[in-house]
Amino acid sequence: MYPETFALEARLRQEKIQSALRDTGYDALLLADNANLYYTAGRVFCGYSYIPVAGDILYFVRRPAGLQGNNVIYIRKPEQIAEELQSRGFPQPQTLMLEGDSLSFVEYNRLAASFPGVVVSEKGTALIRAVRAVKTPYEISLLRRSATIHDAMYRHIPHLYTEGMTDIEFSIELERSARQHGSLGIFRIFGRSMEIYMGNVLSGENADNPSPYDFAMGGAGIDSSLPVGSNGSPIRPGQTVMVDMNGNFTGYMSDLSRVFSIGKISELARQAHHTSIRIQEAIENIARPGTAAADLYNIAVKITQDEGLEQYFMGHRQKAGFIGHGVGIEVNELPVLAPRSRDILQEGMTIALEPKFVIPGVGAVGIENTFVVTANGLEKLTTCPEEILPLD
Amino acid sequence: MYPETFALEARLRQEKIQSALRDTGYDALLLADNANLYYTAGRVFCGYSYIPVAGDILYFVRRPAGLQGNNVIYIRKPEQIAEELQSRGFPQPQTLMLEGDSLSFVEYNRLAASFPGVVVSEKGTALIRAVRAVKTPYEISLLRRSATIHDAMYRHIPHLYTEGMTDIEFSIELERSARQHGSLGIFRIFGRSMEIYMGNVLSGENADNPSPYDFAMGGAGIDSSLPVGSNGSPIRPGQTVMVDMNGNFTGYMSDLSRVFSIGKISELARQAHHTSIRIQEAIENIARPGTAAADLYNIAVKITQDEGLEQYFMGHRQKAGFIGHGVGIEVNELPVLAPRSRDILQEGMTIALEPKFVIPGVGAVGIENTFVVTANGLEKLTTCPEEILPLD
Repeated sequence: MYPETFALEARLRQEKIQSALRDTGYDALLLADNANLYYTAGRVFCGYSYIPVAGDILYFVRRPAGLQGNNVIYIRKPEQIAEELQSRGFPQPQTLMLEGDSLSFVEYNRLAASFPGVVVSEKGTALIRAVRAVKTPYEISLLRRSATIHDAMYRHIPHLYTEGMTDIEFSIELERSARQHGSLGIFRIFGRSMEIYMGNVLSGENADNPSPYDFAMGGAGIDSSLPVGSNGSPIRPGQTVMVDMNGNFTGYMSDLSRVFSIGKISELARQAHHTSIRIQEAIENIARPGTAAADLYNIAVKITQDEGLEQYFMGHRQKAGFIGHGVGIEVNELPVLAPRSRDILQEGMTIALEPKFVIPGVGAVGIENTFVVTANGLEKLTTCPEEILPLD
Repeated sequence: MYPETFALEARLRQEKIQSALRDTGYDALLLADNANLYYTAGRVFCGYSYIPVAGDILYFVRRPAGLQGNNVIYIRKPEQIAEELQSRGFPQPQTLMLEGDSLSFVEYNRLAASFPGVVVSEKGTALIRAVRAVKTPYEISLLRRSATIHDAMYRHIPHLYTEGMTDIEFSIELERSARQHGSLGIFRIFGRSMEIYMGNVLSGENADNPSPYDFAMGGAGIDSSLPVGSNGSPIRPGQTVMVDMNGNFTGYMSDLSRVFSIGKISELARQAHHTSIRIQEAIENIARPGTAAADLYNIAVKITQDEGLEQYFMGHRQKAGFIGHGVGIEVNELPVLAPRSRDILQEGMTIALEPKFVIPGVGAVGIENTFVVTANGLEKLTTCPEEILPLD
């Protein structure tokens, strides 16, 4: 299934999942979501990863043709999974977890029915997301590589601006640059309703347009079929451009936002931007394994209130309900940094912090960086300059 | 919810859905999938469209803030839908259809439980996909506009090639050109497992690399997290480059593939390419409302066999099981042109035909065009030259 170099890593992930499974008392977990297949196999395939509480992962593959390995079993339809387990003498599970939050209702029921007499739980999504939230050293190395390229690409951004550009024209050059730096393009995201192109380039008033999507920032977009992000506005003096482009250079996505400006921007906007940097510093000062994610959100709110900036925080006409989120194979992993989050920071988590503001008439300000939670606290992986950079 | 200009169109779509609902005997359909929200509201929002068998559609909206209209009801959670229906005096459904193929198991059960005592069916996806397969004149006009821009972009392709480019480098210039022509970027596709970037640029031997995805063609990709499409191969003399980039310029996607070449390509590859054009002509000759989609597939196979090209048809190391598909809001709508398809062509359907071949050592050949099914047969919407075009 995977190259020999990945074998130890695959074993480590298998053990993490099996340890979590053991805690639930379930016999096995069956995964079908691409992000989870990639996690367990080191590559995307069409099929299923079957993880028993003890013993090796089995990969039930429909496509592509030609995958090799002891644990690879080709099938045409999911009903063959239970049959193959039986005919090959593997223990039959009495209890099985499925991905209740990503399998469709029809797929879930079909899979469940293919294991007659087995107790099936929908909690497989929660289990695998909790496991994936804490990265292995190899995963962190992939995220670190993404962040390094992401950083290099961001340092190049001011060179891509030409006077008179619209936000879309600017975005197109950034997208091209990202691809030239090795971006895979797609933006893998958890949840049925979330969609966006490569990222969000928000200029001026458009930053205050509410979108249907649960991103930190909105924008009207250029078509009612995708109402988010750039809307074709000219980039004007006195306004900001926030660039929040995804950093999918390795299959592990870093997240990074920076703000650029044309001409002189208002004192209020500068104050809000510096508040974002101060919030980040305050969070860096206290975040460590064991810190509650909700506490980090609350600190951000406290600093914002002290500055009298609440009405602009995380949006103005419409507000996002979080200031950060886990990143990895998907851009919205655990933990969630939100007021009612029960997530607790753990060593090996990788998070994006994005305290942002929308200043009417100016645009979006604030920063976003990707961090890894180490035993000693947060290590910042995205290190390009955080000040508002003039494009002119 | 939508501009006045869309009101008549919204009414027409409502009537189409209600007519289909009436045939099932169900009282109402509740939609949550972005493609279906866009279809019913003319825009994407976060929430639900509730279509009773009689009376107007109600839009239950979570985001964005600020949508206007008599039929817009803001909610925070899905449980409020049934409550709002009751408190506003709308008839309570006895029977309700949900999107069993796109709602997750957990979401589906949560929605179903919020309508206590109501008989809930999972067949909402099948119903709305069947309705959406037959386009209104306005939808066809949007698809026609996409196809026209798509065509213009394709005519520009040879100018984007520079000697010595890899497939990825070429693809990046095509992606930029598509965006400059107004592409929205995202590739909306039905089904949990399908993902790709803006489209597929397949050069030489890479066309024969099997991928996990159920596209007509494969490719290895540049990373195991997205193993499809360009893989960084240099574009070499004697090889073809197939460009299959999506045409999402309006929210309705046209589909179009053309083949380019460097140097002299083999007779076998030329023969296969001409066979693809002949298959298209044969299908154009017989396809009209009432034709079985499976018959179109069978004609393609027959012509391929007559030419002795079966081993290359729809892939070589791995084969796709279809030669065409509906297009619209999503790139893989109904009908499916496959051997066991039960779909029948209807006036107003819009389909992409893509009889393709993979010739080892040369690459992919064949054409893809988007058609609308009219009373008199197929009308081709993508009309750029179909011959293999030299890049050098």
